Amino acid sequence: MTSSDEHRERSFGRAADQMRPIKLTNNVIKTAAGSCLSEFGDTRVLCCATIEEGVPKWRRASHGCGWVTAEYAMLPASTARRSKREYGARKGRSMEIERLIGRSLRSVVRMEKLGEVTVTIDCDVIQADGGTRTASITGAWVALHDALMGLVRDNKLNRLPLTGQVAAISAGIVDGRALLDLDYPEDSHADVDLNLVGTDAGGIVEIQGTGEHSTLSRAQLDELLDMGQAGIERLVAIQNEVTGFRN
Amino acid sequence: MTSSDEHRERSFGRAADQMRPIKLTNNVIKTAAGSCLSEFGDTRVLCCATIEEGVPKWRRASHGCGWVTAEYAMLPASTARRSKREYGARKGRSMEIERLIGRSLRSVVRMEKLGEVTVTIDCDVIQADGGTRTASITGAWVALHDALMGLVRDNKLNRLPLTGQVAAISAGIVDGRALLDLDYPEDSHADVDLNLVGTDAGGIVEIQGTGEHSTLSRAQLDELLDMGQAGIERLVAIQNEVTGFRN
Amino acid sequence: MTSSDEHRERSFGRAADQMRPIKLTNNVIKTAAGSCLSEFGDTRVLCCATIEEGVPKWRRASHGCGWVTAEYAMLPASTARRSKREYGARKGRSMEIERLIGRSLRSVVRMEKLGEVTVTIDCDVIQADGGTRTASITGAWVALHDALMGLVRDNKLNRLPLTGQVAAISAGIVDGRALLDLDYPEDSHADVDLNLVGTDAGGIVEIQGTGEHSTLSRAQLDELLDMGQAGIERLVAIQNEVTGFRN
Amino acid sequence: MTSSDEHRERSFGRAADQMRPIKLTNNVIKTAAGSCLSEFGDTRVLCCATIEEGVPKWRRASHGCGWVTAEYAMLPASTARRSKREYGARKGRSMEIERLIGRSLRSVVRMEKLGEVTVTIDCDVIQADGGTRTASITGAWVALHDALMGLVRDNKLNRLPLTGQVAAISAGIVDGRALLDLDYPEDSHADVDLNLVGTDAGGIVEIQGTGEHSTLSRAQLDELLDMGQAGIERLVAIQNEVTGFRN
Amino acid sequence: MTSSDEHRERSFGRAADQMRPIKLTNNVIKTAAGSCLSEFGDTRVLCCATIEEGVPKWRRASHGCGWVTAEYAMLPASTARRSKREYGARKGRSMEIERLIGRSLRSVVRMEKLGEVTVTIDCDVIQADGGTRTASITGAWVALHDALMGLVRDNKLNRLPLTGQVAAISAGIVDGRALLDLDYPEDSHADVDLNLVGTDAGGIVEIQGTGEHSTLSRAQLDELLDMGQAGIERLVAIQNEVTGFRN
Amino acid sequence: MTSSDEHRERSFGRAADQMRPIKLTNNVIKTAAGSCLSEFGDTRVLCCATIEEGVPKWRRASHGCGWVTAEYAMLPASTARRSKREYGARKGRSMEIERLIGRSLRSVVRMEKLGEVTVTIDCDVIQADGGTRTASITGAWVALHDALMGLVRDNKLNRLPLTGQVAAISAGIVDGRALLDLDYPEDSHADVDLNLVGTDAGGIVEIQGTGEHSTLSRAQLDELLDMGQAGIERLVAIQNEVTGFRN
Repeated sequence: MTSSDEHRERSFGRAADQMRPIKLTNNVIKTAAGSCLSEFGDTRVLCCATIEEGVPKWRRASHGCGWVTAEYAMLPASTARRSKREYGARKGRSMEIERLIGRSLRSVVRMEKLGEVTVTIDCDVIQADGGTRTASITGAWVALHDALMGLVRDNKLNRLPLTGQVAAISAGIVDGRALLDLDYPEDSHADVDLNLVGTDAGGIVEIQGTGEHSTLSRAQLDELLDMGQAGIERLVAIQNEVTGFRN
Repeated sequence: MTSSDEHRERSFGRAADQMRPIKLTNNVIKTAAGSCLSEFGDTRVLCCATIEEGVPKWRRASHGCGWVTAEYAMLPASTARRSKREYGARKGRSMEIERLIGRSLRSVVRMEKLGEVTVTIDCDVIQADGGTRTASITGAWVALHDALMGLVRDNKLNRLPLTGQVAAISAGIVDGRALLDLDYPEDSHADVDLNLVGTDAGGIVEIQGTGEHSTLSRAQLDELLDMGQAGIERLVAIQNEVTGFRN
Repeated sequence: MTSSDEHRERSFGRAADQMRPIKLTNNVIKTAAGSCLSEFGDTRVLCCATIEEGVPKWRRASHGCGWVTAEYAMLPASTARRSKREYGARKGRSMEIERLIGRSLRSVVRMEKLGEVTVTIDCDVIQADGGTRTASITGAWVALHDALMGLVRDNKLNRLPLTGQVAAISAGIVDGRALLDLDYPEDSHADVDLNLVGTDAGGIVEIQGTGEHSTLSRAQLDELLDMGQAGIERLVAIQNEVTGFRN
Repeated sequence: MTSSDEHRERSFGRAADQMRPIKLTNNVIKTAAGSCLSEFGDTRVLCCATIEEGVPKWRRASHGCGWVTAEYAMLPASTARRSKREYGARKGRSMEIERLIGRSLRSVVRMEKLGEVTVTIDCDVIQADGGTRTASITGAWVALHDALMGLVRDNKLNRLPLTGQVAAISAGIVDGRALLDLDYPEDSHADVDLNLVGTDAGGIVEIQGTGEHSTLSRAQLDELLDMGQAGIERLVAIQNEVTGFRN
Repeated sequence: MTSSDEHRERSFGRAADQMRPIKLTNNVIKTAAGSCLSEFGDTRVLCCATIEEGVPKWRRASHGCGWVTAEYAMLPASTARRSKREYGARKGRSMEIERLIGRSLRSVVRMEKLGEVTVTIDCDVIQADGGTRTASITGAWVALHDALMGLVRDNKLNRLPLTGQVAAISAGIVDGRALLDLDYPEDSHADVDLNLVGTDAGGIVEIQGTGEHSTLSRAQLDELLDMGQAGIERLVAIQNEVTGFRN
Repeated sequence: MTSSDEHRERSFGRAADQMRPIKLTNNVIKTAAGSCLSEFGDTRVLCCATIEEGVPKWRRASHGCGWVTAEYAMLPASTARRSKREYGARKGRSMEIERLIGRSLRSVVRMEKLGEVTVTIDCDVIQADGGTRTASITGAWVALHDALMGLVRDNKLNRLPLTGQVAAISAGIVDGRALLDLDYPEDSHADVDLNLVGTDAGGIVEIQGTGEHSTLSRAQLDELLDMGQAGIERLVAIQNEVTGFRN
């Protein structure tokens, strides 16, 4: 790897393995059961959890189990060039991201302890500067936690039906250099882009790497995974501070 | 009219002809050409203006004229009971509101001075507690103003193509009493509901009164109009403070 | 106001405060429970009421109450330039009008006396020359009345569950002059356009005024309201003749 | 064939090979280029022709040729049980009928003499009592003729670009008996149902026979074809009276 | 009829009244209850029958009766020019064909002996060279037969609820000559095109003749029917070989 | 890892690191520019490439570059329980898979050497038994190769615009054991599921690992990657045999 002075400076003057300033603020929406404004630098995602009685039709066979799902959307003005609302037809990208958020959250929920309720986490991107899916997952866990704590406080559940925390970060190869937490300018000319979702226990929940402009060697993959797992550790700690959760 | 002590107390301890605390904050979104977080009590609407080259197809005949339009949506968690995104089919209510916002804004824009651009004002309800359409219009004007000022600053326009300001407020008959700026609990059991859009010059741009549960006499209509026009005057003054606009 | 000889002559040689020839013909469709061909000059709307068992899902909580709703559409050839059927996506304008018709009718129906049935009033514009929404509401009430009388005749209801009549008329400012019942040429260059829905008892059910090209002063609003309320009185009398209804 | 007194009496007291009273009234809609109210007994279809500049994209290769197409819809109240508007998704039946109407009309139009215009014939069923597709085709030809005559009168065409007339009638096997022009009660318990479209010159344009409840022998097919061709001859004569067309 | 040497030679060197090589192969898909690859020359359609518990909502009134329906689609690459998938909106042509297949199959099923199940026959065109609807119907009957035999083998039915076989073939007038089983080049410049569906007992189930470019005389119709009925006899025999069915 | 005799036997009697019998058959569809029937055991996917002039709108800025895209669908009867066609709305899963196929193929295409054409690879699942996306990618490359070779043969391109081959395989943790190329029964109770897309040069194009039921340790990830990369090597060799391609 070349010395850093040959490279474009990173936003917030950070090193290759450093994340942008991370800020998770909960209790921001009164009408939601749980909410978190998740900020990764200039990327801002509003994550709101709502709880509804009942489960989707196909889920009813699993008597007594609950369900956790997610929706993801970008406000039209969140991108430099206005992006259209997905009224006519959903974009593949949005559906892919909301499926990813849902799977990630479900990996730490004890569905059989949840009761027959559906928790929906809406992740609406207010301002986009790269990493909206990782900011969504990280903030969505906080909103989910708070919504479930509400059920405990209201004596609808005896204890929090969570096996742990889940958080996410991106990493990528930009100009041949491995970088953590890409912002939009970095992301848009990255050769390879990896999104990593992990738990507080260090397990990998999701790994999604894409190399449309280049391919990835095993050595590069290892470097990105090391960076990403370290980042997730720090995100988990920030989630702890905001929610007071201890596993 | 009966004495106020017989009535349910209003939120924020206000009198019948008093609006909720109003707060307009501009420059809240970096990616938008103009933006305003419009708060009417607990109702919070994010209004963002974006500018795109060109005009809609049907508009091209009016050579050189621009276009101003609006979109309105509620975040799912903005309501006490989660409201679905309008992917499959638009709701009549949303389309009605966004048409109202668009007409209101266009009433103060000199289209022939705008150039062939389209300004879209997205009004996304973050938290709903009644009056989302009036908060949208009032905040949308600020976002529109700031976006147009940007064109002036960038020397794309010589002067602001606005004939004035536009703001909106609701009023209604609740338990037989005329009230200004209904919050959600008031609105949901109002007999008659009036939305008024007006200019800084005192003209009425839109008046929409509905009495599904009761009808309105001319005397009641007059009382609501008096209240509403006074409210618009105050909103216009707040817009002035935020934007520095003087007609 | 200037003298009338300076103004373009109105269709049917009428004065500023005069409506076009109004003709309401009921019992025109055998398959409908109630029907009325509503003609305001060259504007012709076919209004048909059908009755179906049951109420919409969201309405089921109101045990025993019925529901009244409306649909509005224009036949493609009803306009000078063929208008497309709304298969792909509904137009905001149509949804706005059918919501207005529905609310207007519901304001005079005793839902709790109707039984668990849904009455749908379909308003299909056969020929359009301005004022299709006011012709729709005025004719829809006749179709609704006749459909409900059928339930009384069939001993499904003891008495007509109507508190009164509802009718509608437009008025507007054209070339600075207040005019009643605008036809299409007048409507298309009106500065301000007002639709008024009222009852036989003189109450205002809906008021919708729009000034996209200009604003409205309180004095002008009063003049339009005076004209409109006089027009509604005459429409109510014509409804009486056709249906034999007396409140 | 059994004697007629053993059979249910037919509407309008007609014989097995007799059509219902047929009435074609043209010039009924001012906004359309051509229009015809087509009545086959209680079945009433409003057929309106409109002319638009240009042809569909795929048609542009055929330089100078025009296009003729049709749309078919039923007003919701035209059937005994209210039928839903086809907003969400088109019904296969409607699309099949409008394709049939379009093909039938095109079989008598000299496309290369029409110029680059599109003629759309909207067939809207006002009241349905069986045979809506045959009433549509028969009336649609009148509307098409009148619209094309308008182009001749306006000197946009030198002569009528029609090779002849087209009309349609149904026939079927009901209770073992061959009947012409089935009304709804007959149609709904017919064993076999045949729709025949023919020209004034005696040619068959379309033949569509369906035997969901039974099959058809060649002898029965011949009987139905004889009846149908005689019916078409009479329909063609009525079209001549209304339009003054002579081939 | 003119001598064959004046005409374009037919594919597979066949005479005017000869079908292309026909091949029906069953048991081709393990996941389907019945399946048949139907080949008419280069036209290849995969017909798969699946059985689901229950019947459509509107069918529930007919207590104990089953339902048989069909879906038809073309793989995008089955045509020389890629055809789009019908995601946005169904094509009228496809809906027309799948309705035809469904009606044809139902004409030989004893619905009251089927039990409350729905059999869906999916006909997916793998390669298209004319006659896809006739190949679909002919192969669909084989898939249906095999699926129903499965129910008999599993003792869910006592005996096969079929009254017989159904098969289909096209015929048309090309360059003035009557031809059986048109391939794509013939079909695309045929003057008149007839599709005939018939049973093993010689009855006509469906007849659909279209003459967009020309009309059909009774004599021509008779010639096409003769050819078509002979073709269906041969198809029925091939179905017998594949399935072992004897009526 | 436990000994293999404690585990459920794998289909085709294969070892943990063995793929199912793989069969790639090209030139199966005459109407396609390139085609391949891709079989991974009982999973069968028909991959067809078609070439159209021009590129999507957003691509036109990249003057002279081509585009490669993919569509993925399952025939309804390809699954044990009939799966609905995606007419109303696309499924997130299908869109995710077709985006994955498209990205994978594009990683080995020299777009700037392709000319302004769009190559679409349709992957239609004929029979599904797990691994449909990996069978799709592996077969799609063959179809793409053959379509591009056609352009070379027709002298539309000087040389094949491919930088190499791309193939894909799945691996997963089932009952605690790492397995290659999961079939449907294995996939449906896997704890962790990984899809790997790689090139003939050994680079990783895509890695997608999901642990909805469990998480993945770095050691497990390494084991799956080793297996997967070995599998891709073998698939690449089979592609070579079928196409004769040598890099």
